[in-house]
Amino acid sequence: MALCVVGSIALDSIFTPFGETADALGGSAVYFSVSGSLLHPVKVVGVVGDDFPMAELDRLAPRGIDWSGVERVEGESFRWKGKYSYDLQNRETLETRLGVFADFKPRISDGLRDAQYVFLGNIDPELQLGVLDQVKEPRLVACDTMNYWIHSKRDALMTLLRRIDVLMVNDSEVRELSGDWNVYRAARWILKQGPRLAVIKQGVYGAVLVDQDQFFYVPGFPLEDVFDPTGAGDAFAGGFMGHLARTGDLSTANVRRAMVYGSAMGSFAVERFSTARFDEIGPAEVTARVRAFSDLVHFDILP
Amino acid sequence: MALCVVGSIALDSIFTPFGETADALGGSAVYFSVSGSLLHPVKVVGVVGDDFPMAELDRLAPRGIDWSGVERVEGESFRWKGKYSYDLQNRETLETRLGVFADFKPRISDGLRDAQYVFLGNIDPELQLGVLDQVKEPRLVACDTMNYWIHSKRDALMTLLRRIDVLMVNDSEVRELSGDWNVYRAARWILKQGPRLAVIKQGVYGAVLVDQDQFFYVPGFPLEDVFDPTGAGDAFAGGFMGHLARTGDLSTANVRRAMVYGSAMGSFAVERFSTARFDEIGPAEVTARVRAFSDLVHFDILP
Repeated sequence: MALCVVGSIALDSIFTPFGETADALGGSAVYFSVSGSLLHPVKVVGVVGDDFPMAELDRLAPRGIDWSGVERVEGESFRWKGKYSYDLQNRETLETRLGVFADFKPRISDGLRDAQYVFLGNIDPELQLGVLDQVKEPRLVACDTMNYWIHSKRDALMTLLRRIDVLMVNDSEVRELSGDWNVYRAARWILKQGPRLAVIKQGVYGAVLVDQDQFFYVPGFPLEDVFDPTGAGDAFAGGFMGHLARTGDLSTANVRRAMVYGSAMGSFAVERFSTARFDEIGPAEVTARVRAFSDLVHFDILP
Repeated sequence: MALCVVGSIALDSIFTPFGETADALGGSAVYFSVSGSLLHPVKVVGVVGDDFPMAELDRLAPRGIDWSGVERVEGESFRWKGKYSYDLQNRETLETRLGVFADFKPRISDGLRDAQYVFLGNIDPELQLGVLDQVKEPRLVACDTMNYWIHSKRDALMTLLRRIDVLMVNDSEVRELSGDWNVYRAARWILKQGPRLAVIKQGVYGAVLVDQDQFFYVPGFPLEDVFDPTGAGDAFAGGFMGHLARTGDLSTANVRRAMVYGSAMGSFAVERFSTARFDEIGPAEVTARVRAFSDLVHFDILP
């Protein structure tokens, strides 16, 4: 059951109180795939410029990432430069150079049209709709977006919502989109627009899953050392979708497990700069962290 | 096993986007006792002025609240006036009139000196120390404080920490006290100063328990309607201490349950103005909410 991600492939320059990186591997499709491929092979659709260090991508291929859907075109790769506050809770964008990403029109190859699990990273909702026009009958489509699109492309976004299964956004995005400050009511509003699941990401505090009947909460993992929050949301999405693609089970109980796999991957992402933490871990570490999440919230009602 | 709370008894005037109250029953000892008494009888030590509507307290006595430790002295009762932001996440103090509370010197009667479970509400740490000088051999002492005391009475607070078992504070307080922005490291620092447990309250996001060996997280309960956050932290403390006093069991597993009872009580507190929600509920509603917390976080690792 093929798992496909469409999103950005970037070179990030990041400043945190603990150090900095220049032109490090980043972008939603990259974080999604390094995370998701720990659970299930991932096929990536994206674009890079002719200045991109392809060896960085090639190095990751053996772990189950298929980069053949990535176009390499003339021009500069997407670059983002940002700086985090002392507590990593806020960040400032210092520079965004879209480069070849400005003209990105995702093309889904024949081999990818029957992808069963599709994640639409945070790009223009018109392009996200364009992807859905190219895939045949996906079993599950999940989608991220951001405040910029909520303001500038609201109509396209509302059309998109009718065609996706899972919307993954953060607190402020779901509030902006719904016009309701209460995230639980806001999430229920989302479900009326099309998606059958809403995943509300709350940064260090965790994430909540909302469907017609229930709420399910996974707290943020208690990390005493956090280095770089970049990509945590996309790593979450990779774990969530990777678990569902691997198991092929969309039951409520298994979607809850997917939330935990997502949270585990998000917690790994922030422990090192860029994607470095994913070079250090394998299935054993993922399983151990999922168990740690279970311990973190476990209680028996009766003694 | 007597459960005793020392704290404020106030008349609150509160403005929220959903309405307002004037001179409604409030204060840390009140919220603690209406919550805790759903689980175990509570004895209150505090002070009110001669203008206080004693019938309000008398009305609550039958549910297991012993107000005989409350002094009624000449002068005006403690009054607080505050206004919440549109999303209830921030509040502004409009007026604080300490009245008789300014000269409060808690006196523990003979019948209360052997209290086994003691909660020190947020008052001057010198007064909190004074209470500990009067009780004999409590099994568990928990304590709240606030940024004001962290700045103005740091030495007394540090002395107090060496004599208590549980510190219950919020994110910003534990950061101020420890000087560390990472709440998990900050909580571990607290444990080195004396307490064997730290409970970090994170508002709508929940609360985390930290001891030498573990973290335990209870998320905030997903409420689609919240009216008045005032007193949620003290209601939490009432549920936490009430459960421990009722069971007499200080095992790790039972302290985790106490966290859930605390969270349940905190979630009730915010559903109505003042303490009104506690007039509507009994043991059945408490049990149902504890079960709902269990559902909220439940997942099985394996399918």
